[in-house]
Amino acid sequence: MSDEHRPGLTGSPLDRADHIRQDDAALAEVQGSLRARLLRLDDLFPALDEMGALGWGSIAECDERHELLFLGFDGETPCFAPLDEEAPSAGQRAYEVWRHLAQLPPGQAAIYGTARGLIEWHRRHRFCGSCGGGTILGKGGWQRTCGGCGAEQFPRIDPVVIMLAEHAGKALVGRQSRFPPGNYSALAGFVEPGESLEEAVARELKEEAGVEALSVRYLASQPWPFPGSLMMACIAPVADPEITLDPNELEDARWVDREQVRAALSRDPQAPFTAPPPFAIAHTLLRAWAGAGE
Amino acid sequence: MSDEHRPGLTGSPLDRADHIRQDDAALAEVQGSLRARLLRLDDLFPALDEMGALGWGSIAECDERHELLFLGFDGETPCFAPLDEEAPSAGQRAYEVWRHLAQLPPGQAAIYGTARGLIEWHRRHRFCGSCGGGTILGKGGWQRTCGGCGAEQFPRIDPVVIMLAEHAGKALVGRQSRFPPGNYSALAGFVEPGESLEEAVARELKEEAGVEALSVRYLASQPWPFPGSLMMACIAPVADPEITLDPNELEDARWVDREQVRAALSRDPQAPFTAPPPFAIAHTLLRAWAGAGE
Repeated sequence: MSDEHRPGLTGSPLDRADHIRQDDAALAEVQGSLRARLLRLDDLFPALDEMGALGWGSIAECDERHELLFLGFDGETPCFAPLDEEAPSAGQRAYEVWRHLAQLPPGQAAIYGTARGLIEWHRRHRFCGSCGGGTILGKGGWQRTCGGCGAEQFPRIDPVVIMLAEHAGKALVGRQSRFPPGNYSALAGFVEPGESLEEAVARELKEEAGVEALSVRYLASQPWPFPGSLMMACIAPVADPEITLDPNELEDARWVDREQVRAALSRDPQAPFTAPPPFAIAHTLLRAWAGAGE
Repeated sequence: MSDEHRPGLTGSPLDRADHIRQDDAALAEVQGSLRARLLRLDDLFPALDEMGALGWGSIAECDERHELLFLGFDGETPCFAPLDEEAPSAGQRAYEVWRHLAQLPPGQAAIYGTARGLIEWHRRHRFCGSCGGGTILGKGGWQRTCGGCGAEQFPRIDPVVIMLAEHAGKALVGRQSRFPPGNYSALAGFVEPGESLEEAVARELKEEAGVEALSVRYLASQPWPFPGSLMMACIAPVADPEITLDPNELEDARWVDREQVRAALSRDPQAPFTAPPPFAIAHTLLRAWAGAGE
C-alpha cells in the first residue's frame, strides 16, 4: 500500500521498547531522565501547540494524583502520557476529537491515539472482571494486576470489520441516524467469538443490508481508540444487489459508483453524499476502491 | 482461499440470528421450543458421541444453577450451550482440548469454539471493570450488564498476529519452551493499542527475532477460543536474515525451506521439526507458504 493509501492513526515514530516496560528499574530510570517528556492533554483531548502539533511538557507537570503511561522512545527521548484513572471513559463519543485529528500529521495522530487508547482502557478496567477486586497499573501502563486474585489484564482491543460490498462497478455505503446529515460510510461491525474476520464481514453485510458476500478480500487495518477498536477494512463482491435494510442498524444504504465516490472524497459540492474524513479507514477503503489518486 | 486452505475453527453452519438475541420474547420462545437442543459439555470440553461428533441433549438437561447461551440455529433447530459462571476460566491451557479438536469435523469444531469462547468470556467478566459491581448475563449470552453502574459489556476478543518472516526462499519458525519437543510454529503476538495489525507484525518480528519486515501481506484469520483470540496470519519479507532472539519469548528460531515445511506438514519422520496441528492457523499459514497440496 502506497503512503497515500496508508490508514490514518498509523505510523507512530515511537519505539515502544517493550523491554523497558518489563523492567521496573529501567522504567524508573527513563522516567527520571531529564530528557523525558509528557504529552499535554486537556482531559482526553490533545493540547496542540501554536503550530498545530502535539504539545509536550516535562514529567514534573504531571499531577501527583495521576499515573504515568510509558509510550516509548522518540529517538532518545522517553515519552509519557498522564492518566487520571478516576475520570470516566468517553466511550464512543469520537466526533469531538475529529477537529484535532484533522489537524495533526499522521505520525502524531498515531502517538495521540496510543495514549488515548491506553487511557480509555485503564478507566474502564479499574476492577477485576473475575473477582471484583481493585486492579493496579503495572509495566508502565501496559498491564493491570488484581490486588485480590492476582489476575493479570492487558489492554483490550475490539476487532471490528469495516467493508464495502461490491456489485457491477458499484459499492455499498450506508448511514446511521447519528451520522452528520448526508454522510455515508462503509458498513461495519464487531467480530464475535467463533468467527473469522471474513465470516464477520459476511454476517454483518447479511444482517445490516441483506446482501450475501461471495468472497472477502482484506485491504488494510487501523487502530481506532474511541474507545479501543482495531478496524479491518475489506471488500466483498455480492451476487445480488437487492438491499434489505435492518432499520435498527442503518437509516439508509445505497449503491454508489466510482465517479460518485471520487466526487465525495474530493468534497465536490455536487457529490451525492459526504464521505468520512481522511483519518478514518473508511476513507482509505473508499479511496482504494475508487482508484482515486492512482 | 480454497477449502483445503480454510483455517480450522471456522465454517460454523449455525445462523447466529442476532435479531433473536435482541428480543426477550423471541428468545424465550426458541428456548421453550421442543426442537431446542443443548451442547453436551464435560466442564469446558466437548462430550463427543460414539461417532466422534459433538453430543447434543435437550434443554431439560441443563442444570438449574446454570445459564443458557444461545448459539444460533442449525436449520430450524435452536442450539444452546450451558454456562456455569462460577467455574474458573481455563485461560490459555489449550493443549488439553487438542485431541478433541483433532477429531471434530471443521464446522463442528467451529460450533464448539463459539460456545467455548463465550463461556471463557463470561467466567472472566462476572464483575464490572468500571465500578466493580456484579454483572448480569443478557441477550442470550452475548452481553453482560452491570447491576451497579449499568455499563454494558460485549464479548472480549483479543486480536493476535501470527506470521512468517520470509527471506531467500526460507521462512522463519520458532519455538517457546512450553511447546512439545521438536515443535516449531509461526511467531505470534497480541496487537497493542495505537498500532495496525501490519505494525504489530513488524514490531513482534523485531522484538522476538530481531528481523525487520519490509512489507506485510495478510493471508487469513481464525478464532482461537483459548480463551479468546482472533488470529490473523501474515507473511512478511525481511531484508536481513540475521536472528537476534529474545530469550524471554523464544527458546529457538530458525529459517526453514519449503521442502522442510512440506516434510513437517506431512509428518515425515525425517522432517527437521514438527508442525502445529491442522486446526491451528499456523498450519494453514505454513501450508499456504510452502504451496503444499497445490
